[in-house]
Amino acid sequence: MKTYREELVFETKTRRAYLNITPQVEAVIQKSGVKEGLVLVNAMHITASVYINDDEQGLLKDYDAFLERLVPHSGTYRHNETGEDNADAHIKRQLMGREVVVAITNGRLDFGPWEQIFYGEFDGRRRKRVLIKVLGE
Amino acid sequence: MKTYREELVFETKTRRAYLNITPQVEAVIQKSGVKEGLVLVNAMHITASVYINDDEQGLLKDYDAFLERLVPHSGTYRHNETGEDNADAHIKRQLMGREVVVAITNGRLDFGPWEQIFYGEFDGRRRKRVLIKVLGE
Amino acid sequence: MKTYREELVFETKTRRAYLNITPQVEAVIQKSGVKEGLVLVNAMHITASVYINDDEQGLLKDYDAFLERLVPHSGTYRHNETGEDNADAHIKRQLMGREVVVAITNGRLDFGPWEQIFYGEFDGRRRKRVLIKVLGE
Repeated sequence: MKTYREELVFETKTRRAYLNITPQVEAVIQKSGVKEGLVLVNAMHITASVYINDDEQGLLKDYDAFLERLVPHSGTYRHNETGEDNADAHIKRQLMGREVVVAITNGRLDFGPWEQIFYGEFDGRRRKRVLIKVLGE
Repeated sequence: MKTYREELVFETKTRRAYLNITPQVEAVIQKSGVKEGLVLVNAMHITASVYINDDEQGLLKDYDAFLERLVPHSGTYRHNETGEDNADAHIKRQLMGREVVVAITNGRLDFGPWEQIFYGEFDGRRRKRVLIKVLGE
Repeated sequence: MKTYREELVFETKTRRAYLNITPQVEAVIQKSGVKEGLVLVNAMHITASVYINDDEQGLLKDYDAFLERLVPHSGTYRHNETGEDNADAHIKRQLMGREVVVAITNGRLDFGPWEQIFYGEFDGRRRKRVLIKVLGE
């Protein structure tokens, strides 16, 4: 059994952003040498998501509008009484998810036709990390 | 370490459907020969979910009503300006989740009393796939 | 390859509760002897969640208010026509998630600065279980 670990680092210019990180994850799997196994990709921060969906610009705007309608940044939150302003980001991240687990088959992400891995940032403009952990053989 | 991979194929007659796929997943685990490990079950398409909950017909209707109230199929979405009509399905799938990871113990799904694995379809009436990846020994 | 399995048991005094279970999961990983691998932590009941976020009391109230606003306990649900009163709990648990998968590195949870594992109970006042399955070497 092999394991391999690597971090990606992001610092988005906007508060919210949706970045396709599939090529970076593919590169880490190649480095790991794992041909059959699983890869875990997770946000290491609790106001960001890793999720799998379509790389289509209209859809990314739909996600953003949906999340902001449901959990507005300017809403009233108990968490923000601590001096924070990111309660909405903690809730948005729960809706989009913390992590994905993807099968590795023949040394590659075992994906359907349109699956792409995204980093979803909900409280950006600071340095944040994503963990990639590969396990297999 | 062993790994084993199989796909399930679905083509639902309705746009949205909720199918209990637990027996199929159990059968794949038996074929794999894995006694201790993990199984990943994920939708390979980005307008469908795999999730774990109760096989009760009223609840399935509650899920459907909740999702349709929150993200109506007939709503206005940027993604649909591309000629698609399934933006709602991409968002519904995020809320219900892409995948489940389940423990395998003594060669079986290590489940609580009511856990059942469901395929949640939000843009059906076409051929779609679910991936089952077993890892363990 | 090693695997190790243990259950945690909870019986909350209130219908809904949010409990930080990180120390219990760390202790199980130490017992397992696994230094490199993955740990799966999942609710074994379908009206409860395991999720990762911040241990801040205001935020826990924000989660609760958000979930209750979106899926009120006193709403009208088909599932409750069966004599149950917990349809809302089945839906709330989907939004917060069933499970987390966390990397184990050097024998510890491989976490970012604020990540904490929570048990989210949405239909408490009864005995319920969480499964911890460790896999690695």
